Amino acid sequence: MAGSEGRSNRSYVYLFSEIPLVEARVGHDWDKVKGFLGGKGANLAEMTRIGVPVPPGFTVSTEGCNAFLNAGKTFPAGMWEEVEEAVASIEAEVGRKFGDPLGPLLVSCRSGAKFSMPGMMDTILNIGLNDEVAEGMVELTGDARFVYDLYRRLVQMFGNVVLDVPDEVFEAVIARRKEESGVANDADLEAEDWKAITGQFRDLVKTYSGMEFPTDPLEQLHMATEAVFKSWTGKRAVDYRNASGIPHDLGTAVNIQTMVFGNMGDDSATGVCMSRNASTGDPELEGDFLVNAQGEDVVAGIRMTQPIAELADIMPAQHAEFEAIARKLEAHYSNMQDMEFTIERGKLWVLQTRDGKRTAQAEVRIAVDMAEDGLITREEAVRRVQPDQVDFFLHPQLDREAQRTSKPLATGLNVSPGAAVGVIALDADTAERWAQDGRDVVMVRPETKPDDVHGMLAAKGVVTLKGGRTSHAALVARQFGKPAVVGADALVLDFEERILRVGDEEIAEGEWLSVDGTNGQIYAGKLPTAVPDLQNPYLLKILEWADEFRRLGVRANADYPRDAERAREYGAAGIGLCRTEHMFFEAERLPIVQRMILATTASERSEAIQELLPLQRSDFAGLFRAMHGLPVVIRLLDPPLHEFLPAYDELVQDLADLKMRLQHYSTMSEIDAALQEIRTKQDFLARVEALREENPMLGTRGVRLGIQIPELTRMQVRAVFEAAIEVKREGLEVIPEIMIPLVHLSKELELQQSDLEEEARAVMEETRAEIPYKFGTMIEVPRAALIAGELAARAEFFSFGTNDLTQTTCGISRDDAEAGFLMHYIRNGIVEHNPFAVVDEAGVGRLIDIAVRDGRAVRPDLELGICGEHGGEPTSIALCHRLGLDYVSCSPFRVPIARIAAAHAALAESE
Amino acid sequence: MAGSEGRSNRSYVYLFSEIPLVEARVGHDWDKVKGFLGGKGANLAEMTRIGVPVPPGFTVSTEGCNAFLNAGKTFPAGMWEEVEEAVASIEAEVGRKFGDPLGPLLVSCRSGAKFSMPGMMDTILNIGLNDEVAEGMVELTGDARFVYDLYRRLVQMFGNVVLDVPDEVFEAVIARRKEESGVANDADLEAEDWKAITGQFRDLVKTYSGMEFPTDPLEQLHMATEAVFKSWTGKRAVDYRNASGIPHDLGTAVNIQTMVFGNMGDDSATGVCMSRNASTGDPELEGDFLVNAQGEDVVAGIRMTQPIAELADIMPAQHAEFEAIARKLEAHYSNMQDMEFTIERGKLWVLQTRDGKRTAQAEVRIAVDMAEDGLITREEAVRRVQPDQVDFFLHPQLDREAQRTSKPLATGLNVSPGAAVGVIALDADTAERWAQDGRDVVMVRPETKPDDVHGMLAAKGVVTLKGGRTSHAALVARQFGKPAVVGADALVLDFEERILRVGDEEIAEGEWLSVDGTNGQIYAGKLPTAVPDLQNPYLLKILEWADEFRRLGVRANADYPRDAERAREYGAAGIGLCRTEHMFFEAERLPIVQRMILATTASERSEAIQELLPLQRSDFAGLFRAMHGLPVVIRLLDPPLHEFLPAYDELVQDLADLKMRLQHYSTMSEIDAALQEIRTKQDFLARVEALREENPMLGTRGVRLGIQIPELTRMQVRAVFEAAIEVKREGLEVIPEIMIPLVHLSKELELQQSDLEEEARAVMEETRAEIPYKFGTMIEVPRAALIAGELAARAEFFSFGTNDLTQTTCGISRDDAEAGFLMHYIRNGIVEHNPFAVVDEAGVGRLIDIAVRDGRAVRPDLELGICGEHGGEPTSIALCHRLGLDYVSCSPFRVPIARIAAAHAALAESE
Repeated sequence: MAGSEGRSNRSYVYLFSEIPLVEARVGHDWDKVKGFLGGKGANLAEMTRIGVPVPPGFTVSTEGCNAFLNAGKTFPAGMWEEVEEAVASIEAEVGRKFGDPLGPLLVSCRSGAKFSMPGMMDTILNIGLNDEVAEGMVELTGDARFVYDLYRRLVQMFGNVVLDVPDEVFEAVIARRKEESGVANDADLEAEDWKAITGQFRDLVKTYSGMEFPTDPLEQLHMATEAVFKSWTGKRAVDYRNASGIPHDLGTAVNIQTMVFGNMGDDSATGVCMSRNASTGDPELEGDFLVNAQGEDVVAGIRMTQPIAELADIMPAQHAEFEAIARKLEAHYSNMQDMEFTIERGKLWVLQTRDGKRTAQAEVRIAVDMAEDGLITREEAVRRVQPDQVDFFLHPQLDREAQRTSKPLATGLNVSPGAAVGVIALDADTAERWAQDGRDVVMVRPETKPDDVHGMLAAKGVVTLKGGRTSHAALVARQFGKPAVVGADALVLDFEERILRVGDEEIAEGEWLSVDGTNGQIYAGKLPTAVPDLQNPYLLKILEWADEFRRLGVRANADYPRDAERAREYGAAGIGLCRTEHMFFEAERLPIVQRMILATTASERSEAIQELLPLQRSDFAGLFRAMHGLPVVIRLLDPPLHEFLPAYDELVQDLADLKMRLQHYSTMSEIDAALQEIRTKQDFLARVEALREENPMLGTRGVRLGIQIPELTRMQVRAVFEAAIEVKREGLEVIPEIMIPLVHLSKELELQQSDLEEEARAVMEETRAEIPYKFGTMIEVPRAALIAGELAARAEFFSFGTNDLTQTTCGISRDDAEAGFLMHYIRNGIVEHNPFAVVDEAGVGRLIDIAVRDGRAVRPDLELGICGEHGGEPTSIALCHRLGLDYVSCSPFRVPIARIAAAHAALAESE
Repeated sequence: MAGSEGRSNRSYVYLFSEIPLVEARVGHDWDKVKGFLGGKGANLAEMTRIGVPVPPGFTVSTEGCNAFLNAGKTFPAGMWEEVEEAVASIEAEVGRKFGDPLGPLLVSCRSGAKFSMPGMMDTILNIGLNDEVAEGMVELTGDARFVYDLYRRLVQMFGNVVLDVPDEVFEAVIARRKEESGVANDADLEAEDWKAITGQFRDLVKTYSGMEFPTDPLEQLHMATEAVFKSWTGKRAVDYRNASGIPHDLGTAVNIQTMVFGNMGDDSATGVCMSRNASTGDPELEGDFLVNAQGEDVVAGIRMTQPIAELADIMPAQHAEFEAIARKLEAHYSNMQDMEFTIERGKLWVLQTRDGKRTAQAEVRIAVDMAEDGLITREEAVRRVQPDQVDFFLHPQLDREAQRTSKPLATGLNVSPGAAVGVIALDADTAERWAQDGRDVVMVRPETKPDDVHGMLAAKGVVTLKGGRTSHAALVARQFGKPAVVGADALVLDFEERILRVGDEEIAEGEWLSVDGTNGQIYAGKLPTAVPDLQNPYLLKILEWADEFRRLGVRANADYPRDAERAREYGAAGIGLCRTEHMFFEAERLPIVQRMILATTASERSEAIQELLPLQRSDFAGLFRAMHGLPVVIRLLDPPLHEFLPAYDELVQDLADLKMRLQHYSTMSEIDAALQEIRTKQDFLARVEALREENPMLGTRGVRLGIQIPELTRMQVRAVFEAAIEVKREGLEVIPEIMIPLVHLSKELELQQSDLEEEARAVMEETRAEIPYKFGTMIEVPRAALIAGELAARAEFFSFGTNDLTQTTCGISRDDAEAGFLMHYIRNGIVEHNPFAVVDEAGVGRLIDIAVRDGRAVRPDLELGICGEHGGEPTSIALCHRLGLDYVSCSPFRVPIARIAAAHAALAESE
């Protein structure tokens, strides 16, 4: 506050205590304030405002960063003068001065963008030290070891961050010194050692950068600030933003803050702490601290930290004060906080707070707890839980039985739950390459750094040998939902032989490893995995709330009673797609289906079809029982017939082999048997050849088959209605919806409808029962969408088959393209998303929109759903919501995800 | 006129003289009058009004027919009473009475629908005869033979048409009588014979129908009228209407008219006559007549008729009167007339007039002549010439040289020009079946009847042994544009052995026959055909006029200079599609292309691509020369690479064979050679396997290839610009338009555009020349149409590839479907048109509409064309006009058709 009135033409620089000025400039919207000061800066200012003890400092805004970058990486006019003024304000406030040996001001300089990018950006501590100041401080503190340790840290960080001197060079000096002094740990080095090391560091800086280490504190600050701004455009930062979807034009702020020291003796400490447990969401403080240490010692995971609870024993007052601050900050931000603190000679300072990263479980529990405590609304609780986080609950876990009977190779910290099973990759590039080849990979590293993120993203799971719960590996794994175990220190990595060792055991890179991120255990080999039942009470609560907010219904794609049961358990409100042909592939049935296809007379064919009737009936009865009271959409036979026959190439090869062998038989009976086999294969081959198509995707399948073999349609319809009546007689409600696939003409629908109605009527008359049902069509070729008005005159519902619709709309065969040009397109950014993963809004979405409008214009109560694989993908679900569909249908496992995604879509709309 | 005032509540029946009453009812619009009275009735009334001598009569309207059919095939209340009143009016006018032996009225009863359906509907003559009337007439005329011939004809027609007695039964009686009397011709039978025959006919009627031949003239008329109405729903009529696109709900009128007789002596005659030559359009009367005969004798082609010119010698006054009437009628109807006349004892009566059917040549010449004579406007002249008729001029003709050196098997009347080459089918069902199997068929019949029409439609051409220029075969063949030769009486058909005989020569059904409908010659075997140059001056005139009226441009699809030259000659205003890959398939080039595909290193591939450069350059130079001054759209490489390699199955088979043979070789050199061959094939096979796709139509082709092999794009672009510069330096104007195939993302266009611009710029800089060009895209998958706005930001033109667009929009693979379900759909009327022949308006058309609107919104001067095979199909061309495209592009042979179709579309719009 002191001096702030004097600084009138404020542009770029704001003291932490000056948040009212910032708000006067950008408004009171927190998002705007964060955008301007960066997340860290905004939080420091906000903490200052609400009375949390924050070491004084100031922020150079993100606008400053952008102005810097736009000016060709130089300070724009006036900015540096504002920094100097702010430094003067702090000097006045704390009563110390830059470069004053009698009362020196030391500051840190850190980046802080709008969105947290942990470890991606740069920090320089202890700015303000030089030989003169160091000597003055030794006198002031009486602790030369402490002072020269600070000093060498400044030179090291400055050298590394500002002047690009490789860190290994500095570390080597320390290692040599320890060797010379015959000590094992940094902590055993003396004041003289650090002083000497500082000197050597300064020489190294000169050698590697060509310039002397600057001794003027203002020059140090000037260069440090520039370096932080520049780091915004560094490769690590750009990669991270690409992976996280953060825009590149936000810029970073720079926070310059008075140094406080946790390493000033046993009444000093430093730590990081979450306001709740980041793994489980348990509402207790969770963190680590070190007595007499600097913050980076905690994060680096080099010294063994103490859990935060132990602080209560060592410094009870400070622990209590910190706990109160944590609650205050949580209440203030309505979110779990991730804080850094330092205790300097008994005085508690909070250095930073931000929303804490957490696991899916923690996210869900915290959201529920906070909503129930009235800290946030239920809408907000639902909004916070991302579909991917729900997915996480359905992620495979290592099979319990297998786990019970296997001996773990090692155990580490369970920092990110779920199972990962994959081949070992010992570096990020290998992990990425193998993943692109379609292999499941587990990346194993000593520890992770920002350079390793691309490997973590590509891997199924991550193991590190070092590091704690708040290590880089833990934070990133949690954020991206990768199962991870850190600090598995029983493991030894041999990079020369590319081998992982545990005691005598050796596992080579490329061999299988199974990781349980839930309990921290690691197993050699490929353990089986299992999908858990949904039973987490917090998740159930969130899903229950989500159901209140969403407008889209969620159904499941299920072909068997067991799938239907699971779908119902997961909250599906019916079956949106039963693919009847899947039933045809079962072992006992395939021969009957083949007989139907190979039939040479109408009666032979008819006989085979009739044999399928009781089997289909019992399939349908099972589905109806599982889904009683809910609609079941049954799609009539869809795939081309040749899918039920052996492959052409295979048959040709078999025949060639058989003929070849014929030459080696000698007895007549051998030859007869072989000839018989040849004849059978030849029959198959002839039929396969007749059914063969140049482009089967665009060939005789779906309704095209049903129209040519009306008996098949009738048999399926009869099976549906006989089953429905059977189940109805058991006292259960049955709601069948019969769907015709691959329609592109309204005449197709007309013909199938008349066969269907006749057969349905016949069954109902035979049984004197009445089953209400719906008749509908798939929309899976563009023409169907374009003539939706005509189709809606007959169809009571549409189901968009977005897999096929994507193929025909984009002209891409999924079978070919995902191994072909489409991968090239995705890798090279020619297409933004794989259209088979995320519904292509401009093309497929526009067709759906046309069909929805035209269909509803003709039949206002037309039921509209989607049953492609996109039905369980959140972006696509949001699109379905916006397009006004009634429901999505997806695999049973994705039903909970769809429920939350549908709620998000509805909440986004109401915003 | 007499009595008309008394008949006040007029509903269904109008005298020929009462056309003002009809107009008072339906308005003056000729189409409405025709719809109400039928074409024949309207013409009889119209002729009566303008003073042409027409035997008195009246018409029961088409509304009467529909009322009759709606009332369950019974006369609605009041209708019969109106008929009786009208009969009374005629009786008063002609002074004769139904059933009065002293002055008997005889009438004909004929059907007459709005649109002419020759031979499809029924006629009964001489109504009013019975034993008593016959005796009275014998006394009045003194010609018993004449009277009993009339009487037996009445019984025969009545029995056949009204009572369904098979005609053969009657003919057998006559044949037996001739045998008994020892005479060869009907004409040699005496009065007694006919009287006896009449009695036998009446017995037959009783036997076959169970009822006595009715003797009351009013009852005869009543039943005849009913029969004519019923014939509207008969199979023959329905088939004809289906084939001709005539609506089924129009109904037919019935015309009842006083009989006049051309068979009352040598001062009597009867004939049919066109006001101009129906084959050539020559403006002279063309027709046939018989002295002392009834009309049916002329049409049946049994007696040898005399050409109309000879009437001038025999009855000069009547000939002159008739000629004047013909001119009057032509002027009145603004069209060539097809008339029937009878001269009864020197008095000329015109029984019927209608617009005459004619060949394409005649249509074109008549249209031009009439327009030049001021009888019709030029617009009307253009409107009259149908695209199919223009097509006719481009139809193959038998090769002249082959014709010169072959001996004709027989010669007949050249009633419908053009060449037909096909296998002989001896009946209509066989012709239809074989044609459905994809065979070219020539149908050979003794004569044709309405039952044969489906065979004629299916056949490439028709030959009959009997019949004249106005025979059923001639009329129908001309109407449907089938080459035909009739009256080839040297041929003998043996239906038992299914053999065609000419003298000693025998040709079996199923063997080849070549027919020249232009000069009437028939050849055994399969003669080569050739397409003529456009040189008919009347056609050139019509096309010139069409060009004045049309708005759509017409370009051609051409890949070679010779095609481009022909296209230009036919009036193409540029090339709308040059498929560069066709050049790749030429014998000298394919090995280079294969080397490019099989290349294992980048330099090998690059080398092969560079080898193609000079070849492509010279291709393009040829096209540019042929099309100087006009735009040439060049599409970059489109098909999947495997199309350039041998087929997979073939290679597998070859390899199997080679390995098999390996066992039989004995010398090392044989084995070495075989192994070498195996290795080569295996290389091919491996590459083919790698390129193999599940659905190649939706696979790696078009721009997807260009993006993965940018060198190929660049080579083609370089070839285009080097060629353009070469031709420009010859002083010719070159307008290249480069087109990217299979685009579905705007990013694809962006990438190709940047390669293209760079390469084009490079060539222009190297040569210091400047070639303006356009950059555009195909629209051939639905997504491209749906994002047309985005694409138009880059593309200066769109070309709709409707073949592929149809495949993807409808989800139909053309390769598979035209041999598969689509044929089933077409045969069973599930789809109206084959969407690969006629653009599917609801689906594909809607996408084009979207693309046109969105594209033009972004780029108002966007050039829009279509280059699928639909570009030469008239219905599709009309759609393109309505959708606002700039041009259509089609095969050179269809350019004239497209010109006329485009004019029609413009004229239809301005109507």
